[in-house]
Amino acid sequence: MSFCRTPAVYSGDVTTTDAGASTALLTDQYELTMLAAALADDSAQRRCTFEVFARRLPHGRRYGVVAGTGRLLDALADFRFGAAELEVAARFLDPRTLDWLREYRFGGDIDGYREGELYFPGSPILSVRGTFAECVVLETLILSILNHDSAVAAAAARMVSAAAGRRTIEMGSRRTHEQAAPASARAAYLAGFDATSNLEAVRRYGIPGAGTSAHAFTLLHSSRDGQQEAAAFRSQIEALGIGTTLLVDTFDITRGVATAIEVAGPELGGVRIDSGDLGVLARQVRDQLDGLGATGTRIVVSGDLDEYAIAALRAEPVDVYGVGTSLVTGSGAPTAGMVYKLVEVDGLPVAKRSSHKESRGGTKRAVRLARSTGTIVEEIVYPAAGERPPANGHDSRDLLVPLVRKGETVGDLPTLADGRALVAAGLVSLPWEGLKLSAGEPAIPTTFLQ
Amino acid sequence: MSFCRTPAVYSGDVTTTDAGASTALLTDQYELTMLAAALADDSAQRRCTFEVFARRLPHGRRYGVVAGTGRLLDALADFRFGAAELEVAARFLDPRTLDWLREYRFGGDIDGYREGELYFPGSPILSVRGTFAECVVLETLILSILNHDSAVAAAAARMVSAAAGRRTIEMGSRRTHEQAAPASARAAYLAGFDATSNLEAVRRYGIPGAGTSAHAFTLLHSSRDGQQEAAAFRSQIEALGIGTTLLVDTFDITRGVATAIEVAGPELGGVRIDSGDLGVLARQVRDQLDGLGATGTRIVVSGDLDEYAIAALRAEPVDVYGVGTSLVTGSGAPTAGMVYKLVEVDGLPVAKRSSHKESRGGTKRAVRLARSTGTIVEEIVYPAAGERPPANGHDSRDLLVPLVRKGETVGDLPTLADGRALVAAGLVSLPWEGLKLSAGEPAIPTTFLQ
Repeated sequence: MSFCRTPAVYSGDVTTTDAGASTALLTDQYELTMLAAALADDSAQRRCTFEVFARRLPHGRRYGVVAGTGRLLDALADFRFGAAELEVAARFLDPRTLDWLREYRFGGDIDGYREGELYFPGSPILSVRGTFAECVVLETLILSILNHDSAVAAAAARMVSAAAGRRTIEMGSRRTHEQAAPASARAAYLAGFDATSNLEAVRRYGIPGAGTSAHAFTLLHSSRDGQQEAAAFRSQIEALGIGTTLLVDTFDITRGVATAIEVAGPELGGVRIDSGDLGVLARQVRDQLDGLGATGTRIVVSGDLDEYAIAALRAEPVDVYGVGTSLVTGSGAPTAGMVYKLVEVDGLPVAKRSSHKESRGGTKRAVRLARSTGTIVEEIVYPAAGERPPANGHDSRDLLVPLVRKGETVGDLPTLADGRALVAAGLVSLPWEGLKLSAGEPAIPTTFLQ
Repeated sequence: MSFCRTPAVYSGDVTTTDAGASTALLTDQYELTMLAAALADDSAQRRCTFEVFARRLPHGRRYGVVAGTGRLLDALADFRFGAAELEVAARFLDPRTLDWLREYRFGGDIDGYREGELYFPGSPILSVRGTFAECVVLETLILSILNHDSAVAAAAARMVSAAAGRRTIEMGSRRTHEQAAPASARAAYLAGFDATSNLEAVRRYGIPGAGTSAHAFTLLHSSRDGQQEAAAFRSQIEALGIGTTLLVDTFDITRGVATAIEVAGPELGGVRIDSGDLGVLARQVRDQLDGLGATGTRIVVSGDLDEYAIAALRAEPVDVYGVGTSLVTGSGAPTAGMVYKLVEVDGLPVAKRSSHKESRGGTKRAVRLARSTGTIVEEIVYPAAGERPPANGHDSRDLLVPLVRKGETVGDLPTLADGRALVAAGLVSLPWEGLKLSAGEPAIPTTFLQ
């Protein structure tokens, strides 16, 4: 079956950048006005730590998935103020600040959870250290990328988990911003999806491409004599081979399946059903295909699928799930809700104290404890200045790894394939309750040491 | 008050493109495989009409807002297959199809609802006419842009309506994909928002920029002697002027306000409250400011606002709403759910007939009827080949206007300011029920003539 016709390319050589355009204006104006004020009163040079974390998981979710780290490191390298960027900044900033921006290059350190690592409320997913000036201007870029990609990855992981080993194709490009589409495909692939319909994601990230056919192609073969489903199927097979997937629900599904096998023979790669009661139809189509001797022809289903619909189809003879809208919109949680908070200034822990939005001061580190079976039991977040907490007989793993040192990306960063393996390992490590789709508590508790 | 420091530039000269990079791979793979099959069987040259419409409005919404048309026309001009794009296409396409793509340039016609026009279920928002080949490849690009921008614009219009004339600032960049952020700012501005925090939107679309300050700036001025809110405020005022907006809720709001006026005097531009019960706090802060003689100091509120929270603050002394997450995620409806359907082939109406997803065949036009007071009463969608329906004593307005002719954008397209005026006029034209925030039916019925 050839719904996946594009050769997979996962090598570390694949570029993950957007052509190197400056990312410096993907920034909120207040970051630059704060910078101006801090340069003027000499607080700009204070040594700071900013941390990224999510106060909570969305909608009773039991885990989050860190995604976007690779894209972020690329975007960081392109965070430079050239003439076009300075022209905008000059409308509201003083010459000294403009001079500073002209020379800007992040020179600090960043540690972070690995891309693909699971996270929980309060996990210090990213730790950015440097002067106030060099760190404050990165807030929006960091949050935009991590919030978007992590939201999609979290939804995708639930869908992959619900699919229980069956193939999943991301096909949501049309339901999200055109540039969010390849990033969504990347996050979905990270979380375990097998392929994407998005060609820019194929080009940019080397994700396997996939595609079937649209109703328009069948309708194109209409004539005044009536519907010409057979002509459309014949054309598709001649052009794309017998392994292709035919869309059988344009008119009548039973007739569509009969026509498909009539035209293609029993070696047809697959049929796609995009409407109706997918469970009932999948069974009916499987019986029909088997009766026609097409026992190897796969059934692809699509049409408003989410993790719950995927799970509901577990007992049905479905081979491939095509998922669009709910995937790229985070299945009800289109943003991960992460924040970027100043937690330390010149060695002094700092935190906001007003109602409802308290933060924990001080640079942190984190470990995750697991039983010898691999099942995780607890996350411990502790002051970086303090001692590594005891493991109490469990395995203990450091969650923060060096990503950037003195502004330079640390060599041999994980590939997208590494991140994909990490998500898969993370899902296996969850306690049984953690994989439930229903709303609940985070899969493991997090302890915050002072 | 200078939360808006960037000069507004609305002129038609402002570029609205993303640097002219090719948009050709922002496409689903199946469009190109369908193209290959259609070229092989000579159906590629059939004259087709594809229409964009939404089967329904999300979540009991009463109207939709067309947004993204300007961005779409720019993206269409950049839909060309260069070497990088062809390299990907060559992995799964035959030489003839590659040759065709190399020469591709849309040469057909596009009509559409004006950007900023309201729409309802079934409104034929865009009508794309040409050969099957030249139209089919545009599906994903068209839908990505219109679905994203219209989702944000619809949410934004409800917020602007709820704000009832008070200022609104878009500040959601951190909660959406980094390139969706400037597009979101544009859609929000189209729908009536006054300004954006996003600097790329300022540069690209000439939208007024805005910004206040973050808690990090106050915390930066911490010292071992304690909190230094006064030092932070003084620094901000010295750098940005007395018209700036100070963030007063880092520690204790009452003390924050007192310190702000102590440092700035009663001419302070504004204070921002980002947490707590905003209604109670706004009243309390207003009383405090007035008592200190700062009667002109404005109150900016932010923190998880949506249209309902904005409406709930109507009776409170709030001057400016800063809206983030709910705006850029479409307030519960992150995609507009529009589809791109083949409706006519060589003059023959075509439509899918399978369950639940019926479409109406044939190229359509649409008019909207209004009373002489301007209040709209009905939308009528009718066959383009048929007669314009009678107005029955109402005013009747054509909704589809020419956007592209023989591949060329029709001159003097509306500016973003024109679209903004159209949204404002559209909201005024709604029957009273149409502006209710609660879930309900579309504000006017749509009649479909055969």
